Amino acid sequence: MLLNLDDYRRAARRQLPRVIFDFIDGGADAEDCVRRNIEDLGKVTLLPRQLRDVSSVDTSVSLFGHSWKSPVALAPTGFNGLLRPGADIVLARAADQMGTPFILSTASNVPLEQIARQANGIRWLQLYIMGGRRIAEQLIRRARNLDYSALVLTVDVAVGGHRERDVRNGMTMPFKPSLRTMLDFGLHPSWALRFMGKGPPKFANLEDPDQGSHSAELAVALGNRQMDRSMAWDNLAWLREHWDGPLLLKGILHPDDARRAVGEGVDGLIVSNHGGRQLDVVPSTIQALPGVLDAVAKAIPVLVDGGFRRGGDIAKALAMGAKAVLVGRPALWGLAVAGEAGVRNVLETFNEELSRTMALLGATQVEELSANYLNNIQK
Amino acid sequence: MLLNLDDYRRAARRQLPRVIFDFIDGGADAEDCVRRNIEDLGKVTLLPRQLRDVSSVDTSVSLFGHSWKSPVALAPTGFNGLLRPGADIVLARAADQMGTPFILSTASNVPLEQIARQANGIRWLQLYIMGGRRIAEQLIRRARNLDYSALVLTVDVAVGGHRERDVRNGMTMPFKPSLRTMLDFGLHPSWALRFMGKGPPKFANLEDPDQGSHSAELAVALGNRQMDRSMAWDNLAWLREHWDGPLLLKGILHPDDARRAVGEGVDGLIVSNHGGRQLDVVPSTIQALPGVLDAVAKAIPVLVDGGFRRGGDIAKALAMGAKAVLVGRPALWGLAVAGEAGVRNVLETFNEELSRTMALLGATQVEELSANYLNNIQK
Amino acid sequence: MLLNLDDYRRAARRQLPRVIFDFIDGGADAEDCVRRNIEDLGKVTLLPRQLRDVSSVDTSVSLFGHSWKSPVALAPTGFNGLLRPGADIVLARAADQMGTPFILSTASNVPLEQIARQANGIRWLQLYIMGGRRIAEQLIRRARNLDYSALVLTVDVAVGGHRERDVRNGMTMPFKPSLRTMLDFGLHPSWALRFMGKGPPKFANLEDPDQGSHSAELAVALGNRQMDRSMAWDNLAWLREHWDGPLLLKGILHPDDARRAVGEGVDGLIVSNHGGRQLDVVPSTIQALPGVLDAVAKAIPVLVDGGFRRGGDIAKALAMGAKAVLVGRPALWGLAVAGEAGVRNVLETFNEELSRTMALLGATQVEELSANYLNNIQK
Amino acid sequence: MLLNLDDYRRAARRQLPRVIFDFIDGGADAEDCVRRNIEDLGKVTLLPRQLRDVSSVDTSVSLFGHSWKSPVALAPTGFNGLLRPGADIVLARAADQMGTPFILSTASNVPLEQIARQANGIRWLQLYIMGGRRIAEQLIRRARNLDYSALVLTVDVAVGGHRERDVRNGMTMPFKPSLRTMLDFGLHPSWALRFMGKGPPKFANLEDPDQGSHSAELAVALGNRQMDRSMAWDNLAWLREHWDGPLLLKGILHPDDARRAVGEGVDGLIVSNHGGRQLDVVPSTIQALPGVLDAVAKAIPVLVDGGFRRGGDIAKALAMGAKAVLVGRPALWGLAVAGEAGVRNVLETFNEELSRTMALLGATQVEELSANYLNNIQK
Repeated sequence: MLLNLDDYRRAARRQLPRVIFDFIDGGADAEDCVRRNIEDLGKVTLLPRQLRDVSSVDTSVSLFGHSWKSPVALAPTGFNGLLRPGADIVLARAADQMGTPFILSTASNVPLEQIARQANGIRWLQLYIMGGRRIAEQLIRRARNLDYSALVLTVDVAVGGHRERDVRNGMTMPFKPSLRTMLDFGLHPSWALRFMGKGPPKFANLEDPDQGSHSAELAVALGNRQMDRSMAWDNLAWLREHWDGPLLLKGILHPDDARRAVGEGVDGLIVSNHGGRQLDVVPSTIQALPGVLDAVAKAIPVLVDGGFRRGGDIAKALAMGAKAVLVGRPALWGLAVAGEAGVRNVLETFNEELSRTMALLGATQVEELSANYLNNIQK
Repeated sequence: MLLNLDDYRRAARRQLPRVIFDFIDGGADAEDCVRRNIEDLGKVTLLPRQLRDVSSVDTSVSLFGHSWKSPVALAPTGFNGLLRPGADIVLARAADQMGTPFILSTASNVPLEQIARQANGIRWLQLYIMGGRRIAEQLIRRARNLDYSALVLTVDVAVGGHRERDVRNGMTMPFKPSLRTMLDFGLHPSWALRFMGKGPPKFANLEDPDQGSHSAELAVALGNRQMDRSMAWDNLAWLREHWDGPLLLKGILHPDDARRAVGEGVDGLIVSNHGGRQLDVVPSTIQALPGVLDAVAKAIPVLVDGGFRRGGDIAKALAMGAKAVLVGRPALWGLAVAGEAGVRNVLETFNEELSRTMALLGATQVEELSANYLNNIQK
Repeated sequence: MLLNLDDYRRAARRQLPRVIFDFIDGGADAEDCVRRNIEDLGKVTLLPRQLRDVSSVDTSVSLFGHSWKSPVALAPTGFNGLLRPGADIVLARAADQMGTPFILSTASNVPLEQIARQANGIRWLQLYIMGGRRIAEQLIRRARNLDYSALVLTVDVAVGGHRERDVRNGMTMPFKPSLRTMLDFGLHPSWALRFMGKGPPKFANLEDPDQGSHSAELAVALGNRQMDRSMAWDNLAWLREHWDGPLLLKGILHPDDARRAVGEGVDGLIVSNHGGRQLDVVPSTIQALPGVLDAVAKAIPVLVDGGFRRGGDIAKALAMGAKAVLVGRPALWGLAVAGEAGVRNVLETFNEELSRTMALLGATQVEELSANYLNNIQK
Repeated sequence: MLLNLDDYRRAARRQLPRVIFDFIDGGADAEDCVRRNIEDLGKVTLLPRQLRDVSSVDTSVSLFGHSWKSPVALAPTGFNGLLRPGADIVLARAADQMGTPFILSTASNVPLEQIARQANGIRWLQLYIMGGRRIAEQLIRRARNLDYSALVLTVDVAVGGHRERDVRNGMTMPFKPSLRTMLDFGLHPSWALRFMGKGPPKFANLEDPDQGSHSAELAVALGNRQMDRSMAWDNLAWLREHWDGPLLLKGILHPDDARRAVGEGVDGLIVSNHGGRQLDVVPSTIQALPGVLDAVAKAIPVLVDGGFRRGGDIAKALAMGAKAVLVGRPALWGLAVAGEAGVRNVLETFNEELSRTMALLGATQVEELSANYLNNIQK
């Protein structure tokens, strides 16, 4: 019975070949950070307010010019095509139906144009800088023309994190499946049959839509997360020349970086440790969140991701001062288990849990979740 | 050998079909709060005072106009009829014999009148507000006429908590037993035979004693804990019109709510998280207790429940400043294991442990348990 | 290989029938306090001082008018005769040979006189007050006449702790062995054969040496630890009438009690929770120690027991300010495993570990162990 | 697949007879300190700085007059010849190739001269004081003549730590293998065959190169770590007479000792607890480090060892203020698994992880790792 996100994780583990499940599930190095994200969220507690009229609870928020049905967005995840062909479209459509923003990854396997045609919801573009500025400029231009409404620059990928599970599984670019992996594929026919007659997923957005050219080296670089290591604060001005819409930085953990971002005119921050997939020695995002909020919460919206598995987790982050939460792995589990309906169910589970939590906290609007709910005694 | 409450829990697990045991044992969502209640109590320690004459230890307290043999009351628990027919009567009689208040739940399966006829002890009524004010007004009127001496309004049930064990077990209203559940019933004949020739337990107090009518929808609503979500502080005035005896609020965790309650003329508070069955993100009650006590302990008595499994646990809460403790699950374990004698034994175990703890702490009266016993070093 | 005290514990568990091992090993209620004693000692750490000449390390201390070879005394333990006939003599002789004080329990199975005849070391008498003052007065008079050099009044036994293992095992007074217990005796012939032709151990000190009379009820009371519950501070004056030597109180945890003791002219304190065998809600002794030391360390020596299993543990207590440590269970494990040699080996293990620890801490005298060694960072 | 140091440890456990693996792996007494070193490192977290140009990351440092390719040195480890004949040479050559200092132990099995002939890298000599000053003076003179560039005096060995695994395994001097050990040797032929036709490893540096004499008693003393217990601060002056190069003390944990060392003209400190092999009650080195740094970081370089298993661990120590890290066990695991290439791979793994961590932290030079990266919230 798929009652909660852990149920979905277990079900996804059964549905997917191990190499694919591990690609989603794993983290960098010893995976301490993956564990910290989950464990530290469990330590936060909230004190409810009773005897308030909660006849109607409204989880909607208004952020960056759009109304969201709930303070949740789909985190950008790359290489979704490994789960099933056209996975990015499925995610975008499910997000659309749930009133949830969809953030298309630079490393998606479906081009921006196709997403724009097939899903009408709130669409953002996540940007990796790699292979020279021209690619980024093209991506931004396409996103602008297709009404992608915000740009998310991921800033915690100067080099690729060392995901040992992927190395052990041969899950590198180019992909080198072992005999064991091929057998594992065979043992998951429901996954494998979807790929019948189809090639492996490609990084569709690296193709220049004008010229139709595709750079194989670029794809390998993106797959191995070999980004532009020289990307620095100064380069934001260049980005701004090409993008005048909302610009968010994803991967900020240090309060000084948060202040700098505000100084540079950034419109929003996503406190993130890349789900523990990049740098293992960093704190959980829920632990880093207060520092960032203290620094910039009055200036710009701060979002957060990393280890959110319950609606109650979301309420915790909101009470601390975050404006919304991004969820990555849970949506992919939903996708693996039941496609579009699975993603919708995952988002619905989050929303139901959040709505129930809000009612029991005595909050009818997301904005009511504030520091008054924080259990100070535990500090 | 049934030496302590954990023994009773294990024995009850053997006696009851799993669906019934889980209904008692489970909590909301991930059951973090259930664990917190137990674990946090374990962390509190007390420093004993030696060389005091403890020839006679008196555990009795005087609260809300009655003398209790010990600072323990039976927590209101709904749907007790699932354990055996007439369970509420058994609990009330055992409480009576032990000098312990019995708090009848709105969701009891025996009407107020029958309890009043069969048990002469301290009787309180726990009130859920649902299905319109008329039902509550009738319940209060009946309680008043039957000398129920205090009213406990549960305030942490704006919506029902999500108890995943119950959903997995089909333990919802209406009850949908699976084949596995039916088999499980068959494997627990001592439980099942008690129900021979009897219908399933009904919410006896929803029947209007004047008209004898019974609303099936109301019963389903109560079973699924669909309460009046609009119940708010303002509505206390309405309650007061119908009830001029002691009024307690059960489910207060936030100091601001505690202060508001005093302002509204409430007579007592029960710091409770509904045994972890409603909102999973809240702190343990023993952790929330000091905040509430700091706010209102000088004004009104504060009681507490949640995870109390030893007489020593009770001593901890009393030393902190609570006036009494409510116990729920343990009484039901006693009931499941040995009926009325079982409940008495459970209460006796608590009392013996508390009495022994008091003697070894050097306290002969409950009032002597004070902050002087708290182990400050651990703070 | 018996390298450390845990080895001895495991060996003793194999040597003894379970009912006997559990009698030694168990604690009150949930045995939380037993665990706390061990765990909290493990959390204390010391910062060594290097490059000091430690050619000769001297573990001896001078306390209450005697020189001890090391800051360790044998804790008074009752009913030692369960381990083997004449166990008290074996313990006293081993202590004598190791230059360690032996504290004879009121509940010993060998009379004071016999101990005095067979062991020439430092002898103290531990006193329980029960069955009227006359018994205590006789015991004190005998101790004085036999050159017992200090009196230890145990103050944490107003009532007997509830040791659930003993109840489950039938290890109560009078002893009620189950069939399983009798079988267990048969499976431990090396233990059982020692009792061939001998009766069960008696509380030898309850016999009036003048009249030879023995009170069966008294023995049952002592076995069940039914002490004089009215024993209070005021009664110390009566004790002082009969005993003008060093008087120590064992079982003090509260700083206020420690101050009172100094005010009453007590000569020394033993911070103790009775090895977790009396009151389960109290802190570990190592956690309670600083409070007591802050209150009275300048006035009188403070000793401590509870969970000491390594020479390094002893060094921790001494660095905090304790003057010596009492060890109970470890000596009994040594006794069970190898009689007098076993007890000596246990004490030798403590001494070797302490001596090595002192050398590696850079301390050549016990007095050098001070707060300078405490790892403040951990506070 | 040997991706990280834990992989190497597991592989080494398979390669080596248990007595040898345990000799490397074990610690003193209960091995609490061994665990603390690892666990406490895991609790430290760092906040990364994003959007900095990290095109080139340089892990090199300049310390004590030499440039190191990374802030890592091979810790001095004694009796390496147990792993394979000539182990010290293998370690020295691997260190040389990796630009990492090699610290030859007094208890090495290859003489200083042979190391100097076969490895051209940065060479330090670790010094134990034992068997009279003449031996130390000879060692220092030889080291000076052979261009060993720094002297490391180990100060935490006043007596040998009690390594219970070694005692259980018969791993004492003289070596007393049990039948089980001999069988174990036979089951590890790849290890055993290397010793064919060779005698057991000798403490090669105890031989007087002038006289060729060898003292058997001295070897036993060194093997059992029976050092000069009278070595004290005053004796540093004598050392200085014979050595005017950089002098470091290894084993300092107390801030007062650190200050004294600076006062005595010591050139550097290594915060160390001997890998938990000497005194079990001391804190982890990462916990003791801040105290020492506060005391002397402005005066002299402070290095640290103990439990470093990841490049990220190294970054943590550097951010706190340490100048470099020593690694002992990991290098031996590499040696056991694959000889010289294994040691190089181990060092390469550390360097790659450190380099990646620095890039993701936004630091291009080791000097940039500072307190600004420390996650204050966690304090």
